[in-house]
Amino acid sequence: MIDQKSNQIKEESMDDLWNVWFTELHEGKSGLTFKVNRLVESLQSDFQRIDIIETEEYGKALVLYGSLMVAEGDTGAYNEMISHVPLLAHPDPKEVLVIGGGDGGCVTNVLKHPGVKRCTICEIDEKVIEVCRRHFPKLTSGLDDPRCRIKIGDGKKFIETTDETFDLIILDLSDPIGPAAELFQKSFHQSVFDRLNPDGIMVAQSESPLFNPETVKAMYGNLRDIFPIVEMYSCLMPIYPSSFWSFAFCSNKYHPLKDFQADRYAQTDLSDCNYYNDEIHKGSFALPQYVRELLK
Amino acid sequence: MIDQKSNQIKEESMDDLWNVWFTELHEGKSGLTFKVNRLVESLQSDFQRIDIIETEEYGKALVLYGSLMVAEGDTGAYNEMISHVPLLAHPDPKEVLVIGGGDGGCVTNVLKHPGVKRCTICEIDEKVIEVCRRHFPKLTSGLDDPRCRIKIGDGKKFIETTDETFDLIILDLSDPIGPAAELFQKSFHQSVFDRLNPDGIMVAQSESPLFNPETVKAMYGNLRDIFPIVEMYSCLMPIYPSSFWSFAFCSNKYHPLKDFQADRYAQTDLSDCNYYNDEIHKGSFALPQYVRELLK
Repeated sequence: MIDQKSNQIKEESMDDLWNVWFTELHEGKSGLTFKVNRLVESLQSDFQRIDIIETEEYGKALVLYGSLMVAEGDTGAYNEMISHVPLLAHPDPKEVLVIGGGDGGCVTNVLKHPGVKRCTICEIDEKVIEVCRRHFPKLTSGLDDPRCRIKIGDGKKFIETTDETFDLIILDLSDPIGPAAELFQKSFHQSVFDRLNPDGIMVAQSESPLFNPETVKAMYGNLRDIFPIVEMYSCLMPIYPSSFWSFAFCSNKYHPLKDFQADRYAQTDLSDCNYYNDEIHKGSFALPQYVRELLK
Repeated sequence: MIDQKSNQIKEESMDDLWNVWFTELHEGKSGLTFKVNRLVESLQSDFQRIDIIETEEYGKALVLYGSLMVAEGDTGAYNEMISHVPLLAHPDPKEVLVIGGGDGGCVTNVLKHPGVKRCTICEIDEKVIEVCRRHFPKLTSGLDDPRCRIKIGDGKKFIETTDETFDLIILDLSDPIGPAAELFQKSFHQSVFDRLNPDGIMVAQSESPLFNPETVKAMYGNLRDIFPIVEMYSCLMPIYPSSFWSFAFCSNKYHPLKDFQADRYAQTDLSDCNYYNDEIHKGSFALPQYVRELLK
């Protein structure tokens, strides 16, 4: 800037020049854009590029191959809904397996339930856990719980070779590109089914019904061939494309609404949940008409 | 581009140079961005700047003073939810008043109910109606229904001077800046209350609970001083900031869930609804924990 009187160049703050934005596009047509205060850390693991950025809107955030995964201030909707909904549809979930979910948010929510004896997490990319521990201490706190068992490795291999069985298996996967692609296939879902106890539940994140309708349609078709009960529920997740995210509740026996465990809900300390509650548990299964028609 | 062999400059298509984006920011921190195929029309009315753009993601869209209001392919959530929820909580709504809503979407949905004898729309900006009629024939079709009465003028003045009363008054307003600011005040809501029949319902769009928490909190506090029944419901609206939009259901007598008119729902032809259905009617009143706490 020029001082009008003296005609001298005034010193500007370097901060005023920083105007960096992270934009995640949907097929080049629309997107979410976030002002970035700071590029905190970038690295390349054996599996993917990992970035930590600090956004002005939602604080520090994890980015995997260019997709926002989780942020400090993202309302918690995704991690709370993927864990508490199935846990409170099962009368006594003791053994839980999380595949993916290296940011720790799912495990941390699972272990809020004192009845859970063990939560195993099988994450392929050790670096994701390591980076998230460093930057998201609250989100990853469950990873230090003595009931948490961490396995670093391919979820598919683990499911196909273990002889353990589980009350609940949660597929907390990134999008069906990159390391998670195979874990969206029917054969994998069948392997998961085989590792469930007879009254077990599987929940999988199932993408955006608005932006990924073909994936959603195919996935639910496959799941219905395997599980007697398949119900979609959704949440509003402001950092994900379209902000509209869905989950597949798949079960042998328990229904997510009819078997809602009201007593255990009342006894469990979920006071630090920011999104989940008993009303949203039920309301999240109500689907817009265009989603109902997609799933027909 | 340079042809590598001949070293000649190759002609490029002009289309390849068109890379125009419309971005709507929330307090300079985050935003939604849309690829724009075409700037269709821009004008200045007595009240505001009006633009029609053609987006790649959602087709033609109406922009008022830089905010996206409605788009051809926006899923219809906002207009369907602001109209069908109150209409199906009232046993026999005959006289309906819409304040604002110049895009016609609300009126068109209201008039899907054959029991409605008259739907009056009071829009301050004639230009909005004129432009929308030209570009959104389906959305504005209700404006040509013989049961529709169009009043061009200030909604506040209309409410304060009319001696008519209504079964349902819908405040389909733009954000509380510009022409709509006064219509978010308590004194205006009291005037609306006074124009309702004793068993009447008012519904108002009530902004984003995620991005406008202070506005939401103040508005619901005021509404509770006036109406015996005040309930928030929400929808996922992908073209609005945060994609999370709320509505205030305010009533003297009828409760939006207990008085849901299941029989009339079954008899009414809502087959071209893309978002609304009986499940979402109920589910939309389930609120995330952070919204519940905001409204406490």
